[in-house]
Amino acid sequence: MRIDPQVVWEDLRAIKKNSPLVHNITNYVVMEQTANSLLAIGASPVMAHALEEAAEMTKIASSLVLNIGTLSCSWIQGMKLALTAANTKQIPVVFDPVGAGATNYRTETAKSILNAGKISIIRGNASEILSLNGDKSQTKGVDSLLHSSDHLSQAKKLAIKNRCVVWMSGKIDVITDGQFVFLVHNGHPLMSKVTGMGCTATALTGAFAAVNQNLLLACAHSAVTMGITGEIAAKKASGPGSFKCAFIDALYNISSTEITEQLHVEVL
Amino acid sequence: MRIDPQVVWEDLRAIKKNSPLVHNITNYVVMEQTANSLLAIGASPVMAHALEEAAEMTKIASSLVLNIGTLSCSWIQGMKLALTAANTKQIPVVFDPVGAGATNYRTETAKSILNAGKISIIRGNASEILSLNGDKSQTKGVDSLLHSSDHLSQAKKLAIKNRCVVWMSGKIDVITDGQFVFLVHNGHPLMSKVTGMGCTATALTGAFAAVNQNLLLACAHSAVTMGITGEIAAKKASGPGSFKCAFIDALYNISSTEITEQLHVEVL
Amino acid sequence: MRIDPQVVWEDLRAIKKNSPLVHNITNYVVMEQTANSLLAIGASPVMAHALEEAAEMTKIASSLVLNIGTLSCSWIQGMKLALTAANTKQIPVVFDPVGAGATNYRTETAKSILNAGKISIIRGNASEILSLNGDKSQTKGVDSLLHSSDHLSQAKKLAIKNRCVVWMSGKIDVITDGQFVFLVHNGHPLMSKVTGMGCTATALTGAFAAVNQNLLLACAHSAVTMGITGEIAAKKASGPGSFKCAFIDALYNISSTEITEQLHVEVL
Repeated sequence: MRIDPQVVWEDLRAIKKNSPLVHNITNYVVMEQTANSLLAIGASPVMAHALEEAAEMTKIASSLVLNIGTLSCSWIQGMKLALTAANTKQIPVVFDPVGAGATNYRTETAKSILNAGKISIIRGNASEILSLNGDKSQTKGVDSLLHSSDHLSQAKKLAIKNRCVVWMSGKIDVITDGQFVFLVHNGHPLMSKVTGMGCTATALTGAFAAVNQNLLLACAHSAVTMGITGEIAAKKASGPGSFKCAFIDALYNISSTEITEQLHVEVL
Repeated sequence: MRIDPQVVWEDLRAIKKNSPLVHNITNYVVMEQTANSLLAIGASPVMAHALEEAAEMTKIASSLVLNIGTLSCSWIQGMKLALTAANTKQIPVVFDPVGAGATNYRTETAKSILNAGKISIIRGNASEILSLNGDKSQTKGVDSLLHSSDHLSQAKKLAIKNRCVVWMSGKIDVITDGQFVFLVHNGHPLMSKVTGMGCTATALTGAFAAVNQNLLLACAHSAVTMGITGEIAAKKASGPGSFKCAFIDALYNISSTEITEQLHVEVL
Repeated sequence: MRIDPQVVWEDLRAIKKNSPLVHNITNYVVMEQTANSLLAIGASPVMAHALEEAAEMTKIASSLVLNIGTLSCSWIQGMKLALTAANTKQIPVVFDPVGAGATNYRTETAKSILNAGKISIIRGNASEILSLNGDKSQTKGVDSLLHSSDHLSQAKKLAIKNRCVVWMSGKIDVITDGQFVFLVHNGHPLMSKVTGMGCTATALTGAFAAVNQNLLLACAHSAVTMGITGEIAAKKASGPGSFKCAFIDALYNISSTEITEQLHVEVL
């Protein structure tokens, strides 16, 4: 198992060519940003949360993205209907447990979604991943401990328990299916100064998962693309405002050469 | 009937001068983008969907814009209350049936809004317009067929059935009241790479309809302004991120000369 | 009482150093913009409106920001639960009565929030402030009368009645606790051409209030920072689109020198 820049590029070409419909039930804060990121990469975003249509919309989609950033009761019901439809259709489901660990409601809701169906990929930061494992650590400071073996083992534990791929994001991104582990070193600190960059990572993973059946690779390719795009955008940015625009431009224009030259992945 | 660049410009001046209050009940994804577009053109956007105030807010507005992009039951109720208030006050109502045809819920909801009151202008893409006519064609590929006489006749059919103006957008925009037809050739492919450009077209049409009682011309002037603004922005953009910023700047700065030189409308 | 640029700078350094968690229950239109502004200034935004978690999220926050821009019944309930939790924890609460005066529902809801708990700072435009005082003046034209002694007295009246700080924004911002009055002359007309600039002011005030216990100064420092940032951004902008990006960049990069050189505050 390795990350081949040429295969990352092939995934990107497949997204542009097939323009997969990615159904997002996500949070209010990041809807526009994630829709624009999916459009920039060549996918077709759609957002439909109502109970009356969440499942039907999933039936015409190529992947489903669930994100609990601004969750409420009726939205969670819509997510579960869509999840069931996605499982029936056997399309990949990417889940972002935003803020799990911060309140009981989030932690319990995130767990209930994991129990409601088959999730293909979970993307979250260290504290979110830990909370899904039932770890009671405080959120504060968790990120600084990211590369301790303890955190790697937590990512693996969640992947094994849910038979899914886990992307624990941070300064260095950890992607694992419980067996193989990729550490993606690409990225830039300005990414943490723009809201919804994590949610964007989750949404783009929906596009990669729609074109690459190897979900571990799809997820790693998404992480690599996010990171390299962030590096390119940072060079053109004067701060997080111009970074946000430059990120979308860079995603739209990313080249095979940039991926080959900048890719920085460690295989454990 | 023709599109006179000088009259487009007079509408733009009237919007800047009168700053009409445009009441939008629209979708979460595009709220910020449409509000900023309305501000850039000189109008005053307001967004109020709650059942308790949707009608009251419409009473102080100069036009109403309804958009079902992220519809749910209570929002649709709010839209219908606002629609009734707009009809009572006799202000124009612009309707965007986002995603009609994609799910039954959307198609039926869009039809129920058309039946709940008088809509002045409907703006949608070909598949949305066709679905409102009860056409069962698949969404996929519809846009490529845009200029077939069949699609023109579908736009006319909907306009006649609802005694309204229909703007079927696509590579070339079709604007018709069922009798006269304008084909607006202005625009740029990057517009389809930014979410909410169609919704922005709908919202801006609310501003034009607030200052020009000839709704067919108001709608065509809006289409011309959108298209020319997109062309100006594309020249300054490096991708869809910078395009989005440049679009708002261009809308704010658009000149009489630019309209005169770039206007490209065919009268059928 | 005076505004010392060095103390404004110390507040900004404290925000960057402590990265206070600011809990926002705000409107759909401005969520992304306010989150990005809070991130740019160094704070940590969180948004959670559900009844099940609004109070719990407030318990881990350093300040609470309530904004009724796109209010509905269940969101208001969430705001009141969060308000009670904030009062119990004794953290500052900043309230933005968006559109109070425009509909009865907004005016009554705004008043019911003021009666539901202790609000620390109210930020609104003149017509919103007047409506909270029960003044029946029309919104139209109110802003042009901003500096009449009548409006100053209205801001003071609301501050005294609610034992809070009032920030009445306009061409010149009035900040008062009912006794002392600051007039902040910083700012730029382009700020009124971007949606959510007022809401951004409210959100940033949540960050300042989290690090400066003198709420009158915290509020004035926030107004000064907003205004100076707007001036810096306007110099780099070609219109409201590029202004919005430049504003976030300027907020992220604002320097002690810029504050010292541009600060323009009058003490009454």
